[in-house]
Amino acid sequence: MQRDDPLPSWRAGGTRDALEEFLAAAEQVPIADRVAYFDNDGTLWCERPSYVQLDFFLDSLRKRVAVDPSIGERAEFAALLTGDQAGVAEIGLEHVALALAGLFDCMTPEEFASAAREFMSGAAHATLGRPIRSVTYQPMLELVAELRRRDFTVGIVTGGGTEFVRAISDGLYGVPAELVVGTLIGYDVSRDGQGPPVIRRNSGLLGVANEGSAKVANIQTQLGRRPILAAGNSGGDREMLEWAQATGFPSLALLIDHDDAEREFQYTSTAQTFAETEPITDVGARLGWTVVSMARDWEVIFPAVP
Amino acid sequence: MQRDDPLPSWRAGGTRDALEEFLAAAEQVPIADRVAYFDNDGTLWCERPSYVQLDFFLDSLRKRVAVDPSIGERAEFAALLTGDQAGVAEIGLEHVALALAGLFDCMTPEEFASAAREFMSGAAHATLGRPIRSVTYQPMLELVAELRRRDFTVGIVTGGGTEFVRAISDGLYGVPAELVVGTLIGYDVSRDGQGPPVIRRNSGLLGVANEGSAKVANIQTQLGRRPILAAGNSGGDREMLEWAQATGFPSLALLIDHDDAEREFQYTSTAQTFAETEPITDVGARLGWTVVSMARDWEVIFPAVP
Repeated sequence: MQRDDPLPSWRAGGTRDALEEFLAAAEQVPIADRVAYFDNDGTLWCERPSYVQLDFFLDSLRKRVAVDPSIGERAEFAALLTGDQAGVAEIGLEHVALALAGLFDCMTPEEFASAAREFMSGAAHATLGRPIRSVTYQPMLELVAELRRRDFTVGIVTGGGTEFVRAISDGLYGVPAELVVGTLIGYDVSRDGQGPPVIRRNSGLLGVANEGSAKVANIQTQLGRRPILAAGNSGGDREMLEWAQATGFPSLALLIDHDDAEREFQYTSTAQTFAETEPITDVGARLGWTVVSMARDWEVIFPAVP
Repeated sequence: MQRDDPLPSWRAGGTRDALEEFLAAAEQVPIADRVAYFDNDGTLWCERPSYVQLDFFLDSLRKRVAVDPSIGERAEFAALLTGDQAGVAEIGLEHVALALAGLFDCMTPEEFASAAREFMSGAAHATLGRPIRSVTYQPMLELVAELRRRDFTVGIVTGGGTEFVRAISDGLYGVPAELVVGTLIGYDVSRDGQGPPVIRRNSGLLGVANEGSAKVANIQTQLGRRPILAAGNSGGDREMLEWAQATGFPSLALLIDHDDAEREFQYTSTAQTFAETEPITDVGARLGWTVVSMARDWEVIFPAVP
């Protein structure tokens, strides 16, 4: 009897052929080198109209403001709360995100993870009419499961907050905390008297945001194995995909093209390349990446909601 | 039929009882929380008369000097090469180690791992009369295997160089690179023209040496899960062991006491505690750690050499 199709949401065509060709070739790769890393936002799940992590931060902010309205008067927060997008842009999204991260100052990692999981269990997506925990891409879940069945180590390399993604990565993707690399917040280790060490968040970034070349450096320092499959959807994934292509093993650089306005969102990220700002899909075409058309290659986008 | 004893090198007694009690209790712990981290030098393998990594660095230095004798004239290296221990102490071991790490400047991670593995495959221990790849502790190998059989995630949290330990951790202990946290060297990401990114070592430390409180902070940032078993043998392991004890789950803080002058080496590390410098074994006794007497608790120290 033939095994059931492990990738039922991937339609027949060039993209599916490229996936299957890679999976077959990888059988000759030593297991220690069967390593696949995925970007998260826009690659494993939906990042529009706003990052899920930003929704979580905003929800936390609103809860704080309900108790203490003065918190909402801070410039970064006032712009967010009133939906003043020009104001947010003027302050800078990175600056606003860091201010939001400061809401969790002094929390232990367990307290932060618990808050993130509570949000995820109840929140709904703004426009898709589904729980936010089910805005993952069904075809990518199938690919992750199939890679694991073929003895791949599967990790997440995200520009998002490491600890936010860790709080959900095991439940959503079966990826354990140590295989998540993102943008890191700092920690302070202290003691209460002579008690055991206690670790609490501070509001400083540890290093730089995990995008671009930083993804390559952080894979090496925090994971220590180079991928032969890397998947992404934006300019911040470019270096990681190129690095995965150049191992000498069979490799796959997978780029998700958000070209399905009807079922998801239509947009194209750009990359700053040598002389210009280029659509990332053009970069992918030039470098021989496998570009996934969500509209053409995916039979369904999202998992069935139970 | 009864299963063969999975811990044949652990003699009957209080230490073995404590191990077995912990293993039984851990069956009630969720699998995601079954996490065990081991220090490496002096905990999983022998660290005397010198750290294996230092032997590797010194071997690399000698090979360089054979080609270019002027390299040996540098003060840090001259003291090492002539066995001038007072000179090394005056310069400072940390400073000397960093100078040695500089020998690998500009190497790719693959080149460094390959050099480390080549050394490991051929070198002999200075006094034990065995290959250096077999100075691991047989009882600890059995414990690691048994933990893994019981669905524990097993990692290494070492003061040694992350990349050196990664080069050998899979072969010696079955621990993959992403579960090794140590002292990190920096990397530079660059391109040759428009080619793919290339990553090369530089000689800067990334952060601080992975000892003491840094072990706790680095476990959180790089691994993201807190251990319920931590094992060590020195003052630099104290915070990690205390942190593992305080999770609320059944826990085990395991301290290796090097009290076997005949079969290994006899020495006791110290810890800087609140008011004083204390032998780490006293700290362990005070805090209720399980102190492993190598002389009394271990039937054999090292694995059989094939």
